[in-house]
Amino acid sequence: MVKGSVRPVMTDITTDIAIIGAGPAGLFMVFEAGFLGYSSTVIDALPQAGGQLSALYPDKPIYDIPGYPKILAGDLVAKLQGQAAPYKPTYVLGEPVLTLTGVAGDLTLKTENHTIQAKAVVIAGGGGMFTPRKPVGLDNLENFEDAGSVLYAITHKEALRGHTVVLAGGGDSAVDWAVELAGIAAHVHVVHRRADFRAAPETVRQMMALVDTGKITLHTPAQLKALHGDDGALASLTLADVDGAETEIVASKLICCFGIAPQKGPFAAWGVTEEKGKLPVDPSTMMTNVPGILAIGDIADYGHKLHLILQGFAEAAVAAKTLQALIDPDKKFKVQYSTSKGVPEV
Amino acid sequence: MVKGSVRPVMTDITTDIAIIGAGPAGLFMVFEAGFLGYSSTVIDALPQAGGQLSALYPDKPIYDIPGYPKILAGDLVAKLQGQAAPYKPTYVLGEPVLTLTGVAGDLTLKTENHTIQAKAVVIAGGGGMFTPRKPVGLDNLENFEDAGSVLYAITHKEALRGHTVVLAGGGDSAVDWAVELAGIAAHVHVVHRRADFRAAPETVRQMMALVDTGKITLHTPAQLKALHGDDGALASLTLADVDGAETEIVASKLICCFGIAPQKGPFAAWGVTEEKGKLPVDPSTMMTNVPGILAIGDIADYGHKLHLILQGFAEAAVAAKTLQALIDPDKKFKVQYSTSKGVPEV
Repeated sequence: MVKGSVRPVMTDITTDIAIIGAGPAGLFMVFEAGFLGYSSTVIDALPQAGGQLSALYPDKPIYDIPGYPKILAGDLVAKLQGQAAPYKPTYVLGEPVLTLTGVAGDLTLKTENHTIQAKAVVIAGGGGMFTPRKPVGLDNLENFEDAGSVLYAITHKEALRGHTVVLAGGGDSAVDWAVELAGIAAHVHVVHRRADFRAAPETVRQMMALVDTGKITLHTPAQLKALHGDDGALASLTLADVDGAETEIVASKLICCFGIAPQKGPFAAWGVTEEKGKLPVDPSTMMTNVPGILAIGDIADYGHKLHLILQGFAEAAVAAKTLQALIDPDKKFKVQYSTSKGVPEV
Repeated sequence: MVKGSVRPVMTDITTDIAIIGAGPAGLFMVFEAGFLGYSSTVIDALPQAGGQLSALYPDKPIYDIPGYPKILAGDLVAKLQGQAAPYKPTYVLGEPVLTLTGVAGDLTLKTENHTIQAKAVVIAGGGGMFTPRKPVGLDNLENFEDAGSVLYAITHKEALRGHTVVLAGGGDSAVDWAVELAGIAAHVHVVHRRADFRAAPETVRQMMALVDTGKITLHTPAQLKALHGDDGALASLTLADVDGAETEIVASKLICCFGIAPQKGPFAAWGVTEEKGKLPVDPSTMMTNVPGILAIGDIADYGHKLHLILQGFAEAAVAAKTLQALIDPDKKFKVQYSTSKGVPEV
C-alpha cells in the first residue's frame, strides 16, 4: 500500500513465497517460483517495483542484460513485471518488513498494514533497504502522509486532477512530474532549495516554458517550513527562503521528490547473519544460515560473487530449486524447459 | 567459412579469446570478454550462429530469459549477436575445431580453413558438437561440397538467383526455402523420402500453390541417388523412388535440409576431462582441468549446475573475470557497470 493513500485495515495474505525486495532479482524470482508452481508476494519499502532501477536511474541504459543490446532500466523493470504477471504475484509496496518470525514452512512477516504467512522467504534486498527521503522539521508530517496529502511517489496521476500541487525537489523526478502534472493539476508549485535543477536540460526547458505561461510557479531557493490543515487535509504550506523570509502558498497536495535513502536492514533481528551489509549464502542453494530464508541478488554474498543483475537472475533459478526442496521435499526436481512447458495466459 | 562455398586459402586469425560454440552462452561470452577489453573469435561446426536455438527451434518461444516475457529462439540469437557486435567478433562458422594445442596464453586452434592463435579458450559447446546431416551413398559428395554445388545452409540466397535448385528434406527448412527460393531460382525441385511434410501447414500450403503454378516440382517419395558433373560443378542428379525406379533431373545446386546430428566432442584429445558428455569446471572460475581452457553453458558441469540458458549467461560473466586474471594477472578486477561505462558504437 503506498504510504500516503488512505490507510487500509490490516490485511492478511497467505502465499507460498514471500519475496523481500521488488528489484530485478525479486521480480524474476516471482517468475522462477511461479514456473515451479509456487505463488509469491513481493514486499518492498519503496512505493514502486524495480528497486534502484526505478528509484535511481529509470532512464539510464543498461547494456549487460543478456539479449538486450541496450535497455533503459525502467523498461527492464516493466518487462520483468510482465514476465512475473502470469503467476499473479501480490505486491505489498511502500511498506518495509517490520518483523519476520516462525520456522521454515510457517513464517510470518509483518508490515505496517499486512500480515503475510509464507512457507519460505527470499530476501532480494539489493543494495539494502531504501526508503524515500522525507522532509525534516515539519510538524504533524505523519498525519498528512496518512491522509494522502503528502506523497513520495505518484502511482495514479489522475488522483491529482484539479488539485493545487506542490512538488519539492530539484532532480529529474521533481522536474519530470512538474511538466507532467502541469496538464492535470489546477496549478503546480515547484519548491527547490537551490536555484539550479539537476535534471535533463530539455525537461528543465519545458518546465521553464510552463513557468512563463503561468502553469507552474517556481520557488527557489526555498525550503518547506510548515504544513497547515486539519485532520491531515493539507490547506497550505509555509516556505522559507535562504534569509528566513516566509511565504505561504495554498495547496492540497505535497509531493516530495528527495530521492531515496538507505536504511539499516532488520536481518540481525531475524537471526540472519549479516557481514558488511551482505548476507552470506551457500551458492549451491542460496540459503542463508536460517532454514527457509534464502537470499539472492546484490544482497547475497559468496566467495566468487559478482554483483551484477544477471547473477541475481541466475540465482533466482537456483533458489527456486531450493524452494521446491523445502516445500515439496518428496518431489523430484527436474529442469523444465519453458519452450515445452509454456506459461499461463496473463 | 560455410562448407560448400568456394574453399578459401588457409587464414590466420589472432584473437584474445577463442570461443568454441556460437550458441547463446558463446555469443554472450563475446560481450562479457569485450566489455573487459578482449577480442573474440567464435568458432562453430554449424554454418550459422545460435547453436540449437537456430538449428532446432528458431520459431519456438522461450519464456525464461530474464526480461523477455516471451521471445522466439531465433530472435534471441539475433539480439545476442547485436549485443556482441560492438566488440567486432570474428565468426568462423561451418568448421569444427580439429586440433587445440599449446599452453595458456599461447593456444592454437585449427579448423579446416583457419588457424586461430588465442590467449585463452572458452568452450561453450552446448549439448555437444552438432553438424548438418549429410546425404549418404553419394559418390564424390565432397567434391561437390567444396565447389559450392552442395550446400547445408543458405547464407546468401542471392547467390542462388537463376540456378535450378534441388531442396532435399521434408521439414520446415526445406519447405520454407522452397517457397522463398521459388521467387529467386530458375526452378525449384523438392525431393523428400516421404509423401508428407513435417512443416508448418500454412507454408506447405504455399509450397503446394507454387507447385500448381509450375514454379516448384515435387518428387515424393524419392531419395537422392547420384550427383553428376565435372570438377564439382553439379549438372544433374539421379533420384530413386521407393521401387528403385530412377529419374534424372537437371540442376546446378543441391541444398540438403536434413537437420543436424551430434558428433563426439574432441575434448579428450585436448586433455580436457569429460564426464558423461559434460566438462567439469570450478564454478567460481569456470576453468576446466586444463589451465587456459574454460567451459560455460550447457556443456559445463559442477555440483549444483542447472542446465538453463540463463545460467550460461551468468557463467560468461564469471569466465570473463577468470580471463582477465589469466591474460592480465596484474590488473585488479573490478565489477564495472554498463550504465556508467557504456559500450562502443557499432
